[in-house]
Amino acid sequence: MPEDNMETHTCTAPVNIAVVKYWGKRDEDLILPINSSLSVTLHQDQLKTTTTVATSKSFEEDRLWLNGKEEDISHPRLQSCLREIRRLARKRRNDDDPGLDSRGLSHKVHICSVNNFPTAAGLASSAAGFACLVYTLAQAFGVEGELSLVARQGSGSACRSMHGGFVQWLMGHQNDGKDSFAQQVEPETHWPELRILVLVASAERKHVGSTSGMQTSVQTSQLLKYRAESVVPGRMVEMIKSVRRKDFPAFAELAMKDSNQFHATCLDTYPPIFYLNSVSHQVINLVHRYNSHYGQTRVAYTFDAGPNAVIFTLEQHIPEFVQAVRHFFPPETNGSEFIKGLPVSHVNLPEELKQAIGLEPMPRGISYMISTKPGPGPCVVKDSTQHLLGPDGLPKSTVKHLLLGRDIGVKHKNCY
Amino acid sequence: MPEDNMETHTCTAPVNIAVVKYWGKRDEDLILPINSSLSVTLHQDQLKTTTTVATSKSFEEDRLWLNGKEEDISHPRLQSCLREIRRLARKRRNDDDPGLDSRGLSHKVHICSVNNFPTAAGLASSAAGFACLVYTLAQAFGVEGELSLVARQGSGSACRSMHGGFVQWLMGHQNDGKDSFAQQVEPETHWPELRILVLVASAERKHVGSTSGMQTSVQTSQLLKYRAESVVPGRMVEMIKSVRRKDFPAFAELAMKDSNQFHATCLDTYPPIFYLNSVSHQVINLVHRYNSHYGQTRVAYTFDAGPNAVIFTLEQHIPEFVQAVRHFFPPETNGSEFIKGLPVSHVNLPEELKQAIGLEPMPRGISYMISTKPGPGPCVVKDSTQHLLGPDGLPKSTVKHLLLGRDIGVKHKNCY
Repeated sequence: MPEDNMETHTCTAPVNIAVVKYWGKRDEDLILPINSSLSVTLHQDQLKTTTTVATSKSFEEDRLWLNGKEEDISHPRLQSCLREIRRLARKRRNDDDPGLDSRGLSHKVHICSVNNFPTAAGLASSAAGFACLVYTLAQAFGVEGELSLVARQGSGSACRSMHGGFVQWLMGHQNDGKDSFAQQVEPETHWPELRILVLVASAERKHVGSTSGMQTSVQTSQLLKYRAESVVPGRMVEMIKSVRRKDFPAFAELAMKDSNQFHATCLDTYPPIFYLNSVSHQVINLVHRYNSHYGQTRVAYTFDAGPNAVIFTLEQHIPEFVQAVRHFFPPETNGSEFIKGLPVSHVNLPEELKQAIGLEPMPRGISYMISTKPGPGPCVVKDSTQHLLGPDGLPKSTVKHLLLGRDIGVKHKNCY
Repeated sequence: MPEDNMETHTCTAPVNIAVVKYWGKRDEDLILPINSSLSVTLHQDQLKTTTTVATSKSFEEDRLWLNGKEEDISHPRLQSCLREIRRLARKRRNDDDPGLDSRGLSHKVHICSVNNFPTAAGLASSAAGFACLVYTLAQAFGVEGELSLVARQGSGSACRSMHGGFVQWLMGHQNDGKDSFAQQVEPETHWPELRILVLVASAERKHVGSTSGMQTSVQTSQLLKYRAESVVPGRMVEMIKSVRRKDFPAFAELAMKDSNQFHATCLDTYPPIFYLNSVSHQVINLVHRYNSHYGQTRVAYTFDAGPNAVIFTLEQHIPEFVQAVRHFFPPETNGSEFIKGLPVSHVNLPEELKQAIGLEPMPRGISYMISTKPGPGPCVVKDSTQHLLGPDGLPKSTVKHLLLGRDIGVKHKNCY
């Protein structure tokens, strides 16, 4: 039974959404990608993972609880992160500062992690999860430095969740992966008008997981190889430029093109992989017709390995576009719960806009929307009442309650 | 009013389906493609266009009736074909054989054309239509030689309908297009076991026509450019080899990969073009799971610019695969009209196959199927009772009846 030798740390980490997509590894073990990628970190007020790590010499083994359920900690990628953090902690003690206390290096860890959004929403929960794990373990073991290198070994895209704002993951070229890490391009405060809407398509399970999907793509798609080598390098340059200049049309068009090209390489995979469904197609058509009506690129979509759309737009266009989504995807109920997260004011949809879009409404195609914006990277939670593990080193009973009332839209004042 | 100076010719021409796809022109006027393509000509017993051309010095203008309705003959591509045939006729009379009679070179033409299949079925009716037009005009004006060069100027893929069996359209490299023509790779008798099923997806209009679609793709898709230059040349070689060897798995896999890559380039187009819908996705999954169950590539799909699937398989697998389609796309009625064309015997679907495929059935996703096989190129119809134009040079009243009782599956003994 743990006693006062137990140390407890709690942190949160964000979800990120790529606008230049990562698809395909050149090294499966180290998780080294075939191209660089660029993402926007979403705000943790709406979407985050919270992780508590407790260390104690009285723990008999490493243990893990995910969303309230104990899970097998032997998963190779979890083990990579644990091993790597312990190695860095040892290294730091030996090399840099022999005076540092041992910080429980030999201690076992208990890890408890929860998302404030349903995993089934297909929102790259593994990125936030591994980022949070690595960040919290680093706190627990007193490790500093380029943690995105460690997070990358848990889940490739997790390295981008180690920073806030606009983040690039440099593919690197070394075999040991030391030059494959994430870097902030601009902080979350850089583009205050930028808004993000997550459109959660009606429940439909992902058919092909991204790990096996990208393996098959690398093995079979000639177009993916060409994209990685000859298209993405130029797009990274253009995308960074558009972010720095806050050039929304350039940012938006490149994001849409890159999402489409990623899904094109999935279709060029053999057997082909489909992540977009009829709801996704309708969202794509809605966005293009909306922009075309205004003769201006006001809204962009991007899709990861699933049918949910992530929409980028500027603050001023949010009320109307949300209303357009509500019109062309009529919600089941009266729609009061249709939009979560940042408040959105109500406007009426101009009749000529409806006419110009002219799509057949798809009732219940979208379950709900989350309204959010770019946000910061991982944070330390100082308030000890927020720890997910109790003084006995086991998940608090409140963890289950947390999961029942997923707190999207409720601000945690202790972070950021 | 036409009299006995009227000459009437009637011909039929087939539909073809590409297994190495044509998408993108390097010259819009001459219709020169950015890559070579290869197709299988479908049998005219099931799918054909019939065209009658009458010439008479008493006709006052060129006129055209399509499927019973008079149409504007001034369409540039129709005019290209007419002009080209008349030019070749003049050339032949001047150069080769000054003794040839004038064959009504100055006469106006009446053209009447009908398909024995609904245009809405999305079955590349323009290919059969232009092939038949050019072939019949050539009869009427006594033109011989490489007619696929002329048909190409009506509709690119029409050049491949000028031959039976397995046909390649060589892209050519000259600016005048003289080296961009179709060539038979193997005749229709070469692979007697090969069978073709057209799966007509429930009515849904094509959103983007192929002419404008391929223009946008050429302008915006980097993947299309790469495909045309670096992928297709190797695939043409492989495809011809697989046809010559009658190597079904090689033929089938390449056909599926090429169809998927074509649709991938549509998705990489900006704005993206979707021709595949949820029915198409289900057919693709069905085929892969069917093959995977048997550990053998027994069935292949290919999709043109629309949601209808064209299935290739060998005769021995037809009954079971048709039953699988019927099971996973339960037809509206009792299903007696579900399969048209070549007779298909009934078998029961093995329970373990249904289990292995494990898809959720999509009721009425497919309206009907047409069972056919490779067939011959254009034919002259000798029986003068089959002319679509009467002695007055106007469509016979029977043309309308023909259209009502589209005669799929009824053999015309006078052709082939």
